[in-house]
Amino acid sequence: MSTARSIDLTRVNEWKDGRVNSFQDCLVAEEPLEIRVNGQPVTVTMRTPGHDLELAAGFLFTEGLIRDANQIVNLRPAVKHKKSNVVEAQLDHESDLADFRRNFTAMASCGVCGKASIESVRQRGIRRLNSEFAIHPEVLCMLPEKLYAQQAVFGRTGGLHAAGLFEGSGELIVLREDIGRHNAVDKVLGWALQQRKLPLSDCVMMVSGRGGFEIVQKSLVAGIPILASVSAPSSLAVQLAREFNMTLIGFLRGRRFVIYSEPSRIKMSKASHA
Amino acid sequence: MSTARSIDLTRVNEWKDGRVNSFQDCLVAEEPLEIRVNGQPVTVTMRTPGHDLELAAGFLFTEGLIRDANQIVNLRPAVKHKKSNVVEAQLDHESDLADFRRNFTAMASCGVCGKASIESVRQRGIRRLNSEFAIHPEVLCMLPEKLYAQQAVFGRTGGLHAAGLFEGSGELIVLREDIGRHNAVDKVLGWALQQRKLPLSDCVMMVSGRGGFEIVQKSLVAGIPILASVSAPSSLAVQLAREFNMTLIGFLRGRRFVIYSEPSRIKMSKASHA
Repeated sequence: MSTARSIDLTRVNEWKDGRVNSFQDCLVAEEPLEIRVNGQPVTVTMRTPGHDLELAAGFLFTEGLIRDANQIVNLRPAVKHKKSNVVEAQLDHESDLADFRRNFTAMASCGVCGKASIESVRQRGIRRLNSEFAIHPEVLCMLPEKLYAQQAVFGRTGGLHAAGLFEGSGELIVLREDIGRHNAVDKVLGWALQQRKLPLSDCVMMVSGRGGFEIVQKSLVAGIPILASVSAPSSLAVQLAREFNMTLIGFLRGRRFVIYSEPSRIKMSKASHA
Repeated sequence: MSTARSIDLTRVNEWKDGRVNSFQDCLVAEEPLEIRVNGQPVTVTMRTPGHDLELAAGFLFTEGLIRDANQIVNLRPAVKHKKSNVVEAQLDHESDLADFRRNFTAMASCGVCGKASIESVRQRGIRRLNSEFAIHPEVLCMLPEKLYAQQAVFGRTGGLHAAGLFEGSGELIVLREDIGRHNAVDKVLGWALQQRKLPLSDCVMMVSGRGGFEIVQKSLVAGIPILASVSAPSSLAVQLAREFNMTLIGFLRGRRFVIYSEPSRIKMSKASHA
């Protein structure tokens, strides 16, 4: 991936066991991105520059402003600035922005609870996830290493989240990085949308860090049957995954992982139950 | 801290080196919280239940809806539900919610850039940070251990962020946990607001994970002169800290840390420069 704008250089002081060294350090870039739909600002997200159009496309899709790639008539950086931090999307329909904004506070109407959050996802018409798709545990265990090996920026800055899309064979399809985990996921799904690869019925999504509600929701919308993370999922993430029969994996490190939902997609050998 | 609602129990399957075990696991709770101001919904944030009033107070303060604790006439959970996920704040003024909402897209007007993000913080009237306050490196190195030792939920779930407020002597003043790092910070600052302890001119804020723009901004508003994190800061976090002479520390682990800005608040011995 291009890392031209993903990294900033700066002079820092390191204190190490009582000694101070000054050197040039790499920082992960963070800048606001505004997404406009039919001329109207919809959101400003703090993101790592790079793959901005994918990020915008992914956001529009995972947040329910579009249902497929054909609904985007035009998607481009605002022309005024070379390093544009504004992406303009022209959709084929008058997107109901008021309705979209209401979503942010929609759960209020029924008292705001986890159940309402799940219900609001259901109302978006999630398709049934592929129940035939399965992965071998040994393949699953190889994913973190593949993710880290491909991370272009993390090694230098220590500051980025990654999201990777994998085949059932463990082959990496696409990887994106961002200071925000949800942005990394939106970049991956925006790429898939633009490549006309949705739904991702035969894919595994793997994210660095933990798996929260938002990550499960975004992956669900894209039809991904297996979601894995390096760290712990939240209670609501597990509830949501169970509700839609998504296989949710946590603590995927070394030769261990925890299955929180739908274990049927993990190909167990008969001898494996303790 | 009370962890009654911070943890959910659930049955999971662990795959370990080819063997599968089923057991009861702890999950960090994640639920939406709606914050209402003078009857109007302002935001819904996914948070870990617990210290909700502090979270709401902190949010109102760090996002600029109030300037001091006296502006809150009333702050309480919505009465209808026992486990309320709605907090209602009554302020002493007609808070300009339209203006607040505009803030989310305000940076757009000048092209959305890091400079504009920093300018929008400046316009809120940040007070000058205490330049007399300083900390000894050896004291700084002890903070992560103190933070982890006090974390009530992390050990069981592996899924929480922590924010801790420390004295210059290294004494922990208050610690809060949440699935969202910004929520953990808001809980700490909401506590300080309610305890009438602002500005926090003689305190160090320490957060788990990385230090982004938002965390620096929130700490700045509370007058905190030193902010430390376990991992990397972003480019914009460093720019913002430098702009306001905040001391920003990253990679605080073991006997090492990196100083990104205002090193004058770190008490170096004369022999320490390599």
